[in-house]
Amino acid sequence: MISTIQIREAIPSDAENLLKHLKKIAVETGFMTMGAEGPGKTVEEQRKEIKTIIESDVTVLFVALDKKELIGIAEIHGNISPKLKHIGDISISIAKAYWKIGLGTTMMEQLIEWANSPASQLKRLELTVQARNERARRLYEKMGFKLEAIMPRGVKDEGVYLDVCLMSMLIGEI
Amino acid sequence: MISTIQIREAIPSDAENLLKHLKKIAVETGFMTMGAEGPGKTVEEQRKEIKTIIESDVTVLFVALDKKELIGIAEIHGNISPKLKHIGDISISIAKAYWKIGLGTTMMEQLIEWANSPASQLKRLELTVQARNERARRLYEKMGFKLEAIMPRGVKDEGVYLDVCLMSMLIGEI
Repeated sequence: MISTIQIREAIPSDAENLLKHLKKIAVETGFMTMGAEGPGKTVEEQRKEIKTIIESDVTVLFVALDKKELIGIAEIHGNISPKLKHIGDISISIAKAYWKIGLGTTMMEQLIEWANSPASQLKRLELTVQARNERARRLYEKMGFKLEAIMPRGVKDEGVYLDVCLMSMLIGEI
Repeated sequence: MISTIQIREAIPSDAENLLKHLKKIAVETGFMTMGAEGPGKTVEEQRKEIKTIIESDVTVLFVALDKKELIGIAEIHGNISPKLKHIGDISISIAKAYWKIGLGTTMMEQLIEWANSPASQLKRLELTVQARNERARRLYEKMGFKLEAIMPRGVKDEGVYLDVCLMSMLIGEI
């Protein structure tokens, strides 16, 4: 990995750069669920969300920075419903210029490490990935995720309906 | 079916009875994702939501009434993200006293009919059901839903982690 890249948990002052990053990558690749409409949050809303995430035992948010530029996000998003609180949804987004340098692997390792740490109450991690996104699928399989379903018409990109894979990983004993 | 039961689309003035119904059935059966915490919405919020649903081409909400009592809800919940707007999540909840009289079948038929009507833009219906809820699974299979995945630890009920089935049905040609 490039030596100038630093990965750390997000802090409230990352809010503005985080939204800029999401807006940029949403149009940079068709692999995201978010499209040109962008994240639809204000900087203040994002700032508050980060504050809540820091306190949470089911949600965590990492950012990757190259010098001062925010170039990647990795998140486990927990659920507020008590019956689903043990399930975390994973999303990772990396700026295209930083693909293929192992950043996705490194960020995913940090998420899984957090999920297994005492800071987390998670017992199941889930993610969805477009079937055509073979690089990402191989990465998730390498990290231990199992394919649970291939969902026809799971997403629509540029007018085309695409298959989406549902993958999961169990965390700890129960 | 009992002749006093009427099924119709929800109207804003159903809001209070709808929340009461949800609160009641959330503790009546372990099959719901919602638990004793209840729906967590005010009557006014629910009233606004019903108003929005009436205008929507991806969300619909039916209620079943026995005389004036609200005894069942069936919903297709659409997505605001443009890339997922064609996917509708189905949920049905019926008061225990009205189980086993075919009400679930009738309400599901109405949802599927709506999804196939010009009022809808849906191309894929999804639902989750606990693996142990065999009556519901048989109903969904009978209606044409296909099993896509069995998700281990998909829900936690009374301290026990349970398998959850993901089922889907494709709507119309693309």
